[in-house]
Parts: sequence; structure tokens; C-alpha cells
Amino acid sequence: MENELISTEKIEELIDGKKIKDIRHIFEVVPTIDIAEACDDIEDKKKIVFIFKTVKSEYTADLFTELSPDTKEEIIQMMSDDQLADILESQFTDDLVDDLEDLPANLVTRVLKNVSKERRATINRLLNYKENTAGSIMTTEFLILLNTLSADEAIKQIRKTGKGKETIYTLFIMDNKRNLVGTLDLDDLIFADGETKISEIMNRDFVTTTVNEDQEEVANLIKRYDLNAIAVMNNDNRLVGLITVDDIVDVIEQEATEDMSKMAGVAPLENSYLDTNVFKMALKCAPWLICLLILGTFSSMILSKFENALGALPILVPFVTVLMDTGGNAGGQTTTLMVRGLAVQEFSPKDYLKILWKEMRVALITGIIVAIFACGWFLLEMYIGIISFNGAEISATGAALEGGELFLARFKVAGLVSLTLFLGIMVAKFVGTSLPMLVAGLKKDPALISSPFVTTIVDVCSLLIYLGFAYIVFGQILPSL
Amino acid sequence: MENELISTEKIEELIDGKKIKDIRHIFEVVPTIDIAEACDDIEDKKKIVFIFKTVKSEYTADLFTELSPDTKEEIIQMMSDDQLADILESQFTDDLVDDLEDLPANLVTRVLKNVSKERRATINRLLNYKENTAGSIMTTEFLILLNTLSADEAIKQIRKTGKGKETIYTLFIMDNKRNLVGTLDLDDLIFADGETKISEIMNRDFVTTTVNEDQEEVANLIKRYDLNAIAVMNNDNRLVGLITVDDIVDVIEQEATEDMSKMAGVAPLENSYLDTNVFKMALKCAPWLICLLILGTFSSMILSKFENALGALPILVPFVTVLMDTGGNAGGQTTTLMVRGLAVQEFSPKDYLKILWKEMRVALITGIIVAIFACGWFLLEMYIGIISFNGAEISATGAALEGGELFLARFKVAGLVSLTLFLGIMVAKFVGTSLPMLVAGLKKDPALISSPFVTTIVDVCSLLIYLGFAYIVFGQILPSL
Repeated sequence: MENELISTEKIEELIDGKKIKDIRHIFEVVPTIDIAEACDDIEDKKKIVFIFKTVKSEYTADLFTELSPDTKEEIIQMMSDDQLADILESQFTDDLVDDLEDLPANLVTRVLKNVSKERRATINRLLNYKENTAGSIMTTEFLILLNTLSADEAIKQIRKTGKGKETIYTLFIMDNKRNLVGTLDLDDLIFADGETKISEIMNRDFVTTTVNEDQEEVANLIKRYDLNAIAVMNNDNRLVGLITVDDIVDVIEQEATEDMSKMAGVAPLENSYLDTNVFKMALKCAPWLICLLILGTFSSMILSKFENALGALPILVPFVTVLMDTGGNAGGQTTTLMVRGLAVQEFSPKDYLKILWKEMRVALITGIIVAIFACGWFLLEMYIGIISFNGAEISATGAALEGGELFLARFKVAGLVSLTLFLGIMVAKFVGTSLPMLVAGLKKDPALISSPFVTTIVDVCSLLIYLGFAYIVFGQILPSL
Repeated sequence: MENELISTEKIEELIDGKKIKDIRHIFEVVPTIDIAEACDDIEDKKKIVFIFKTVKSEYTADLFTELSPDTKEEIIQMMSDDQLADILESQFTDDLVDDLEDLPANLVTRVLKNVSKERRATINRLLNYKENTAGSIMTTEFLILLNTLSADEAIKQIRKTGKGKETIYTLFIMDNKRNLVGTLDLDDLIFADGETKISEIMNRDFVTTTVNEDQEEVANLIKRYDLNAIAVMNNDNRLVGLITVDDIVDVIEQEATEDMSKMAGVAPLENSYLDTNVFKMALKCAPWLICLLILGTFSSMILSKFENALGALPILVPFVTVLMDTGGNAGGQTTTLMVRGLAVQEFSPKDYLKILWKEMRVALITGIIVAIFACGWFLLEMYIGIISFNGAEISATGAALEGGELFLARFKVAGLVSLTLFLGIMVAKFVGTSLPMLVAGLKKDPALISSPFVTTIVDVCSLLIYLGFAYIVFGQILPSL
């Protein structure tokens, strides 16, 4: 993202020139994240500390939140306790908790030393929730109203106590026993007559989530019910936090990234790509490659067992890669559609038979189209010599075939491969539908284990079908096992 | 999603029993989307029309929005013009436009006949924006305030004119020449002193987008700047609409789904998976399989050209699949990380060299780990006979080798394959980084064309490296080309 109003050079220039007024002005007219990115690229981080000294903490708290983890770390080390306490005071608790998760232990201690005792307790509680649960992303700065208030009284109370809360757009309504009885959208409150009791205008059909719920489920709830914020309840069914839609935007993106990574065989990164170091990155990639390599043993084993057949009819070899690629690709298509459909809850394992019936018909049509095309294409490949096959291996005399006999021999090969392709696609779509559904039915993440298994199963099936057909068609010239 | 308060059976029962009061009650306590899903499964859609007759249109407009396209279609056909006009009146324009995009032409005409003339003009304009642009997802129901108002006056005006607007949480502030000069968050307005001029509390560092901007870019802006809503300007830099964060939630999910589909070789679906019919689905899958099959020709060609070498040393064949799989997998890992990083704008093609340097170091470490493991694994495979190789092909006498000589021969094979794996991973990560960056640099979507090309290039390179090394190591026994 470029912003013509700000650049690393410009901000360095202003700091070097101690142009305090200009720096303050920049915070008025430039979004904080653009300033933060410009600051991240400043070599001498001491210069950034100057900004924290001169600009109001209401702005710098935001700036601090938006800085990269590395910059944050350096700055905390250079700040005095007072400066630090000042920034931390203005930060939202959930942002602060996010920061703490990235910091080294000694800095965490220093940060915790510089927040109020009450807040420290909250932070410690939030830090204890398992990663990727509702508890770990919720904020505790929410506003509660009593259901007996009138609209005017409610607005008055919001004005008095709402400042510094994460959101006032969704308000939580309690009865006098502190049970959550409804939610209220601020706009309904604004439009309501001043005398109306809020219990009359609140939504009684609200949904809630619990601290241990997976963040992806929370995202699905917020999306499904088009919520601005959702209440998070603890195990005693007490309101302990809230999650807003803008937190969820990040969750949705992060979950999609994770699913894509998993399906491509990269273990999910804890931090962003750029913040993950080379060695860690390699450790995210290598294990999966090794695992897939081990699974690949099955294909190698089959090819080795049929070594004599492949040696007697070498034309079979060049098509092995095409067969395995197409099977893998067809399986990958279906697996991806399944994993994604399950992730966004378009369907669930209960719909298995319905989906399977659909995919098998898709496979039938896809298989026929691909097989017919492939048959023509393979004939063409042999005709123009991309793949050389003159039929000598299968002729009775051992000499190259010609004319109709050659065409028939080539047609047999092309037909054999195409038929295998067709069946391979059927198997691929069957396994590609069934395996993710099975894994999801067992309450595991289908993104994690489906793709390589689908490919492996399909590979083995395709090879066995291929070589089996080869024996049927060319049995007389192939040596037995 | 299950909801214990509602089910298809229950709602049918209420309709059959004409329990009007109970039906109305359900709308009070159950989220509309849950009612809509229960209704979607009712066989006799006439029953649903009964709901529209008995429940307030303020609720049924929402219900209508949430019904599946098929149900909508049937219901429109069964409704009288008056009923239809009633529902349409209460629907947001952007939801209505979404619906129209799914309906057959004759129903679109009927719907347009039943909305007010002014609204029809807006709808037609919105329908004209290209799909997936800001214009196509924006709403025109926004609220403008004059910058000279005081906070109290602003709130008064919102109460008077704000009802039925898409959002009042972000307000757009104009000067008297109708230029957009700022945005104002409702909470800042609520907390402000009544006398304060809104020009003093509005955000002057706001960002805007334009009608023709890609929706993914809009999503990135909203996410980056943590916005509740963003102003959409036309080509004359006039405010014509707004997009809210909850619209963006859908966009982010949809774009992630599209990217995943594209990378798996499925053309993006226009509708959801369940709403796409079997034949259309096959047409989304088949072309890509054919395209990949054609690209696979290069590998077949190489294998065919080296037919004699593979025949003379058949132990080379079983490892072909492992080499190609691992190359494809390693390339897929990097391609996915690149495509995703580019999509969420974590980096851009300008960062190419930095990223390439990182990935090459990752490749080096990954390659070494995988190659060392693979070498041991392949030796094991040959030792326990999963892959049979007794060295007869390479012995001077033609007899099986034994003892140290056999181990050396096997080590040569395993080393040859492992070295190829290592180099294949290097090539894969190089191509996997470079190609998506190149495509993105040319302003095309890297998700669309990267994966198959990366795999094809890597396959060809791996095979050439493999057979090249085979000639170096076993040259004396391999026939020349």
C-alpha cells in the first residue's frame, strides 16, 4: 500500500528536524497503519521513540499496536517504564494480549509490571485461553445495560461509561440477576422513543458463544447471523467477553490461509510469512515432503513389481506420469471443494450421500470428456512422434507395424490409457469426496490429512487399473509376474 | 447449524394449523436465517407464502433475503404483485440487486415492475457495474451530514433520516460544495459534547475507493484500516455508495474460496457448490484436467525419448513417480505461500528479490533434510525388497551383485535419486516463487495460472536432471539416445 502523504524518508526527515508540529499533523491526516509501516523501515529505531515522546498517547497507542513484532520489541527495550506504562494504558486489552504472545519472556515481564494490577489479572486470564479459541481473541471491554432502563437512560449511561469500550454498537442487556437476556443494536436505541424500555426494543433472538469454542466456529456464527459483535460466555454461562466483526475478518483470512497451507502440505505458520525465519520455514515444509515421499513408496513398489511388463512394453512408461497427474488433479479438485464446503459450513458430513451422488455424476461426465479428448491426443502424440511407438514390441514378427495394423496397435494403447484415465477420475472423485467427509465426521480437520492420502490412494488404484488392463489387452506379449 | 427452537417439521405444523400467533412469536425469538433454512426444506412452497401473508413485512423482507435462490424463485411466482411490492419495499437495495442477479429474466421484469420508479433507476445502475467490483456490492442507502452541524444537530438529523440506511455507524461528512471532507464514527458523535462542531471530531484521514475497484482490493482496504464502512466514489470523485464490513466478510470468504478453487484447477463457481448443477460442475473441472494433461506431454516426451535408457536400467522407473511428486509438492508449497501472501497483500512483486533469497535458503535446508532422509529410505526400500534391485543390470558379468558391491550399486541409485530430489526442490522453490510474482507483476491473478505451470516446469527439469545424472553415473551401461 502506497500513501503519498507518508514515507520512511519523510518521517525520518521530520524526526531528524525535530518538527514536532508536523509529526502531530501527520497523525491527524494519515491512517495510523501507514505511519506504522513507514516507521517499521526506519533503521535506527531510537528515532521512533521520539514520536512516542512527542505525540499524544491516544495516537501512539494505535501506532504501537500496528508496528511489526520486531520493531515493537526493540522499542520496548529502549523505553522508560513510565513511557511504556503510558502507551499500555491506552491500548485495548485484546491487542495487548496479542502483542504479549509474540514477545520474549523478559519483555512480557516488563510489560506486565507496567500495567495496573486489575488489568494484569485480566491479561493473565486471557493469556491462559488456548490459541484459536473464542477466549483467546475476545475482549473484556464491553458494556452492559440493565433491561429496566429507558432508551434515554441507556444513552446517558453509554455516554458516561462507554468510552474506551471495544464497541458500543452492540450492547448487552442483563436482568437484575445478571443473566444475559438480550442484545441491542445502537441504531435501534438511537431511533427509539426516549421513554421506551430497552427490554422492548432489544433482540431476544441473539446467539452467543463460549470461551472454548474454536475461532472458526465463532466466525461462522458472526457471518451466518450477520452480527456486529457476539457475546462470549464462560462455562457457568456468564458473560465474560465479546468478539467484534473486525476481529473476525482477520480470523476468516487466517483460517483460509491455514487451510490453503495445510492442503499444500505446509504446516500452518504461527506468524506471518515474513516474520517466520528460514529455518522454521524449512521445518514447516520438509516433514510433509518426507511424509508424502513415504506414501509414494506404494507407487514405486507397484512399478518395481511390474518391472518386467514395463520392460517388455516400454510404451506403457511415458503414460504413467500422465495417469498419476490426472488422477491427483481430479482428486485435488474434489478434495478442495469438500474441504472448503465443510469449512464454510455449506454442507456437513451428514450430507455425504447427497454430495457423493452429485460428485459421482460430475465424475462420470468429466471422465468421459477427458477420456475422449485424451484418446485423440495420445493418438496424435504417437502419430507425430512425440511419443515413439511403432508397434514392434507387439508384432508377431518383431518388426515395426504399418498402416491399419499400426493404427490399431496405437489405438489399443491410447484406449487403454484413456479408459484408465476415466476410471482413475471416478476413483479420484469418489475418494476425494469420501475421505474429507470421513475425517470431518471424526471431528478432525479435513484440510490437514486429506490431500496426500487422496493422491496416494488414487495413484495406487490408477496404476493397478492401468497394469491390469495392460494384461487384458496385451497379455500374450507380457511376461507373467 | 441446528436450532432447537425451529425445524422444518415444526414450521410446517404451525402453518398447517394456521397458528398465526406462534409463527409471529418464532420471528421474535429465532434468528431469521434459521427460519429461512427450515423453510427452504418445505416441499410445498405454497405454505411459505402463508408466512408472508401473516407476518410483518419488516421480518419477512429479511426472511426473503435469506431464502435459497430456488425457493425465492418459486415464491415470487406464487405471489401477487401487491405482496411482492410489499416485500421488495422493505428490502435493502443491495440485497435486492443480489437476488436479481440470480433470477430468470421474466421474474426480474416482474420484480422491477413492482418497485418504485426512483428505486428502479438505482437498481438498474447497480446491475450495470461489472461483477466483483465495488460498484456491484455497494449500497446506495447511506447518510450524509453537513460539516457545519453540531453534534446535537447531527444526532437529531440521524434520528430523522437515518432509518432504513445500511449503516449509521459510519457517517459521511460533506462540505457545502458536496465534497466528502471526512467520516465520523457514531461512537465519537455519541461521546462528543452536544455543542461541538462535527468538523472538529470527524476523521480527516479517511480512505475511499472507486466504483470500478476490484472487491478484493476493497476488502484489503477495509481490513487494513479497520473500517466499519468505506465510501465508494464515482469517476467524478462524487460519493455514490458505501460498502460495510459485513459485506466484506462475504467477499473475503468468497475470494479465498475462489483462490483455492483456482489453485486446485476448478474454475470459480458463480453460485455456491450446492446451487451449481452437475453438468456445469463437470465443465468447471474437465477443461483444467485436459489442459494439465496437455502440459503433461512434456514429461511423457522425455520418458519416451529415454525409453532405451529406462529399458537398460529399469530400476530408474519406480523412482520417476517419487521425483515428480516431490517436485510438484515442493513447488505447490511455495506457490501457495506466494499466491496467498500476494492476495492478502503481505508482500508485492516489488519484494521479489527479498522473498526469492528467503525461499532459496528455505529450499536449501528443506532439500538437504529431504535428500538425506530419502537416501536412507531408498536404501531401505531396496534392502527389504519393496523395490527389487540386485545390480545385475550394471554388473560386468550380468549376474546379481553381492556384499559390498551390491551396497555400492544400491547407494549409487539412492544417491542419484536423492541428489535429483535435492535439485528438484531447489528448482521447484525457485519457479514456485518466481512465477506467481511474475504473473502478479503483470497484473494477472497468480492463483489462476501458477500451479500447473510450476508443476510442469519442475517435472521437466527433474526428469532431465535425473536422466542426466543417470548418464553420468551409469553412462557405461546406458545406450546413447
